[in-house]
Amino acid sequence: MKTYLSHYELVEQTLNTYNFSGEPIELYEPVTYMLSLGGKRLRPVLVLMACELFDDNIEKALPAALAVEVFHNFTLVHDDIMDKADIRRGKPTVHKKWNETVAILSGDLMMIKAIDILCETKYHQIPELIRIFNKTAAEVCEGQQLDMNFEQQVKVSKADYINMITLKTAVLLGGSLKLGALIGGATHDDASHVYELGKNIGIAFQIQDDILDSFGDGSIVGKKIGGDISVNKKTLLLLELMESANEADHLLIKQALTETTIDKKIETILQLYKKYDVKEKAEETKKEYLKLAFAHLDALSISPERSESLRQTAIELMERMS
Amino acid sequence: MKTYLSHYELVEQTLNTYNFSGEPIELYEPVTYMLSLGGKRLRPVLVLMACELFDDNIEKALPAALAVEVFHNFTLVHDDIMDKADIRRGKPTVHKKWNETVAILSGDLMMIKAIDILCETKYHQIPELIRIFNKTAAEVCEGQQLDMNFEQQVKVSKADYINMITLKTAVLLGGSLKLGALIGGATHDDASHVYELGKNIGIAFQIQDDILDSFGDGSIVGKKIGGDISVNKKTLLLLELMESANEADHLLIKQALTETTIDKKIETILQLYKKYDVKEKAEETKKEYLKLAFAHLDALSISPERSESLRQTAIELMERMS
Repeated sequence: MKTYLSHYELVEQTLNTYNFSGEPIELYEPVTYMLSLGGKRLRPVLVLMACELFDDNIEKALPAALAVEVFHNFTLVHDDIMDKADIRRGKPTVHKKWNETVAILSGDLMMIKAIDILCETKYHQIPELIRIFNKTAAEVCEGQQLDMNFEQQVKVSKADYINMITLKTAVLLGGSLKLGALIGGATHDDASHVYELGKNIGIAFQIQDDILDSFGDGSIVGKKIGGDISVNKKTLLLLELMESANEADHLLIKQALTETTIDKKIETILQLYKKYDVKEKAEETKKEYLKLAFAHLDALSISPERSESLRQTAIELMERMS
Repeated sequence: MKTYLSHYELVEQTLNTYNFSGEPIELYEPVTYMLSLGGKRLRPVLVLMACELFDDNIEKALPAALAVEVFHNFTLVHDDIMDKADIRRGKPTVHKKWNETVAILSGDLMMIKAIDILCETKYHQIPELIRIFNKTAAEVCEGQQLDMNFEQQVKVSKADYINMITLKTAVLLGGSLKLGALIGGATHDDASHVYELGKNIGIAFQIQDDILDSFGDGSIVGKKIGGDISVNKKTLLLLELMESANEADHLLIKQALTETTIDKKIETILQLYKKYDVKEKAEETKKEYLKLAFAHLDALSISPERSESLRQTAIELMERMS
């Protein structure tokens, strides 16, 4: 994690020195507020690591790194409105601390600023960077809309779910890596490979998240086990169970989903997860995506030494989460 | 209006042939829906007219024209949520026809698409266009936030108000003209002049709007007279009245603003407007901005014949509104 940590420091430093102030303050304060809530800074670190695959000078990828972090935080501000979430990283969400108008508008502003910052990159083909960024941004909106649709939708397949998390979460990791790689001077072939690497790792990360929510160690994961189950979230695990369960167990699932005693609901569903080896099946799916990801890493036209650091980081991030 | 109408046709045609479809449909349908609601298409027409000041080939300004219209509609979708507006151009607003989640997300998507379309412009300095576009976009957010603030704010000065409408409305007209001019090959000096031209005309338009809302002919304006008064909107007229009224009339104003019988409220405020020549004062302010606008038109380094069409259009738009 040495590379991750040093890049993380660079991202934090850049974020702290960037001036997001302006008038009226209701519009600009939430930008600084959101960016100060912290986090892993995974996306900007990936931008820098991808640049480093091709060029030792990673400074030139800093605007793009900052841009994806600001963009990511824009999506969080708007998602929190839609999810009616009151708390993010232990602090009130923007629409709670201010109000919904402020959250919509300062979110819009963050989206605009993200593209502005991306334009600061010293690169011969800025429009190309913007097209990649915008394509990713549109897909993230599509993913969020699908996620919202799934709440109402009765039938959701595993394939639907993978498509949703690909758009909502994974493409931004792919896009971050692709931007960094191009800025570092990658060929278009290599840029495509790092994109696929990020996308597939993103899918694996999300599946891992789903698994930990039901099977993790609460004290390590940092949240109560069974959160997804308690709100009937259609995760890969639940969809896997729905596809495997026999008729009698389908009835049990149906009852559990309408069960008002949360602990009982969680217990029933967890028992069924165990009965149908749902965790193992999800682990299998996760491993397939990881394999795909690393195949794209191996396909890069650079020396294995150069890509070693990114490979190690991906493996360690995966392990740290479990 | 001949030029306006032919450019309007070109904009409509371009809008109708552009493909905004995609999946999930909840996200993409509102884009086509909003753009089909019609309107004057003032901003895209201005892009084309500004390009034409410098180059007969206006086709190359079409992506920018489309981009500003899509951006303008994005702001309408989000503003309608904040204003809790149910109807736009006689049709349900996006958050009413679908829901708020759809309105937030499809608005976000429109903002992204606007920049995407702008990037399609054949121009040697796309990042410059994007910077102008983003600066304007951020200012429009600032203006909307100020407008929201004014609803709660007790003291708002005329200068505050002019600043707010400049940001919320006028800079987008300025930005539209500037983009068109640059694409048409204008020098930076000329581009600045058309920006100021559009900004000052935009301020004059908004003041005209305020005047018509209280003093227009309802059957021509197409809405009930006194709409602004009925919701205590801090227009230039009301702020002008507040700055002129004597102590006794200040009491009358205060009573009127809390009056629940709307017709009575409108009648009282209109009487006070007449007593203090508020309409005439607002007309004076409007004329000052128009004068400024035309001074910038005169300052352009092009032949007066070439700018005649834009001058006539501005004058006729102003007259048509009254």
